[in-house]
Amino acid sequence: MKCHLCGVKEAVVYQLHTSKALCRDCFINDILKRVELEIKKYNLIKSNERVLLAISGGKDSFTLLDVMSKIHSSSKLIALTLIEGIEGYNRADVLDFMKSKTRELGIDHIVLTLKEAVGASVDEFVKNMVLKNIKIPPCTYCGIARRRAINKVAREQGVDKVATAHVLDDEAQTYVMNILRGDTMRLVQVHPKGPWLSKLFIRKVKPLRKIYERETALYAYFHGYKFQERECPYITHIPTLRARVRDYLYRLELEKPGSLLRLVELLDEALSDYVKKYYELPELPHCKMCGEPTSYNREICKFCELLMSVGLIK
Amino acid sequence: MKCHLCGVKEAVVYQLHTSKALCRDCFINDILKRVELEIKKYNLIKSNERVLLAISGGKDSFTLLDVMSKIHSSSKLIALTLIEGIEGYNRADVLDFMKSKTRELGIDHIVLTLKEAVGASVDEFVKNMVLKNIKIPPCTYCGIARRRAINKVAREQGVDKVATAHVLDDEAQTYVMNILRGDTMRLVQVHPKGPWLSKLFIRKVKPLRKIYERETALYAYFHGYKFQERECPYITHIPTLRARVRDYLYRLELEKPGSLLRLVELLDEALSDYVKKYYELPELPHCKMCGEPTSYNREICKFCELLMSVGLIK
Repeated sequence: MKCHLCGVKEAVVYQLHTSKALCRDCFINDILKRVELEIKKYNLIKSNERVLLAISGGKDSFTLLDVMSKIHSSSKLIALTLIEGIEGYNRADVLDFMKSKTRELGIDHIVLTLKEAVGASVDEFVKNMVLKNIKIPPCTYCGIARRRAINKVAREQGVDKVATAHVLDDEAQTYVMNILRGDTMRLVQVHPKGPWLSKLFIRKVKPLRKIYERETALYAYFHGYKFQERECPYITHIPTLRARVRDYLYRLELEKPGSLLRLVELLDEALSDYVKKYYELPELPHCKMCGEPTSYNREICKFCELLMSVGLIK
Repeated sequence: MKCHLCGVKEAVVYQLHTSKALCRDCFINDILKRVELEIKKYNLIKSNERVLLAISGGKDSFTLLDVMSKIHSSSKLIALTLIEGIEGYNRADVLDFMKSKTRELGIDHIVLTLKEAVGASVDEFVKNMVLKNIKIPPCTYCGIARRRAINKVAREQGVDKVATAHVLDDEAQTYVMNILRGDTMRLVQVHPKGPWLSKLFIRKVKPLRKIYERETALYAYFHGYKFQERECPYITHIPTLRARVRDYLYRLELEKPGSLLRLVELLDEALSDYVKKYYELPELPHCKMCGEPTSYNREICKFCELLMSVGLIK
């Protein structure tokens, strides 16, 4: 079958949400165009801005790296990979591959352990937690520590934006989760024009937020990425709210391809005025221990609280 | 245990979403106050307006009738009950109870069969459908015919508003369903300030939209209502989108009581500006067969289309 777009080359991809069969080149071009469109629509990144790409090494972040190198000046991009410090989960092969990719693209690539970046690896956190005989999901520490580390590096590097590899599936899940939770504050922060509550936070953008995960998998594969997602040893299969929403949304997407895209577009549009009400919020207060921004109702930030609770700071 | 509100009478109800134990009187007063607050907040019904109460006879509609008689002048209320015309599902006992209730409250009560109101009962529709050897869920006809009948009676009676007995559970489901479907047009119509697209439609309001179904069940029970919901013989247990959303939301509510209330409040608030964009839409076009309003993309309304498809009109 010929590609539905160019009509010349053999189709190799069936694009579920448009019911079109595409050749490799048209598939790739379509992704590039859609990312560019999203960036332009919400003015996510200006052409002269310096951007830190937070790349874990998964297919989504590989796609982010490759796409951004094609639509933004490579000299204005810096990549950052954080090593969590989890025994048996170092993914050295993936990291080597990502490093050769950034080298090839001429993009500076910072590789840091969480220990170097914020003082404690995930394993260290868990070890201390076990000693104190308390239970906190390691993912809680990992998530908070990584966000802190990314923001710290972004500030040190003086970039204008941080780009993360969140895809459409993530956005749809986060939107629905926050609606189900009734969490307006987090809901508005999913929106590309959501409020930014502290000058100490470098603005985060999500260039792939209208691209399906199934598309990044193909995009990465077409560009020589051949790793499988590996499972972190700390993963638990407790049915969290996100896991249930994810399952639900996948079923919906399966029945009606394009549903997730329509859902995110609907909420982007429906919330576009509402998010502006949050612009008037005051700057976030600063943590009394580390000086970083923290939630309105806190004196000590969640990161310091976690480290204190396991005895890593006093 | 004493009531958490008055501190005097024995508590008989545990209000899940506030974690409060209430006595019968405080429970009832709380419902009345919350309905009044909702009506006032969105200016759903003005004190001088005449209102048609669409009451099926279920506990929700019993509650609507009783609550409205207490917070609005009874002389400005008219009740309407429609008989679907389904063999083995006439619920004469419930109807007698509702009629004695409206008599007691001094509220005019119109009882009409769907046949009288719009020309064909549900059974007649199904019979003709079988003859034509086509398949349309009877609920599709029943829902559309009832809406048509309610609006017709409301217009004939010259009322200002139609009040339906939709409760919080319904509102939460409809909001989430329309988000999942990406149906913005229907999404904004769930909102109490949603657009009203035709002068031929009498404006519908939902006074119980912040009251849980579990609360209307108790409220009705406290006022002498003792019927169980009976199942329509045409009901099918196909897992529709609504059924799945309902299950999901009930689980959420069970885990975190108050979730549905927060969800509806969040969307009411988040969509409050957005719905106004729809005020600029033109009036709905009129069906070429019956002259009633129909969707923008239609020439013949869904109701006429259904009747034609089974040969009830030509």
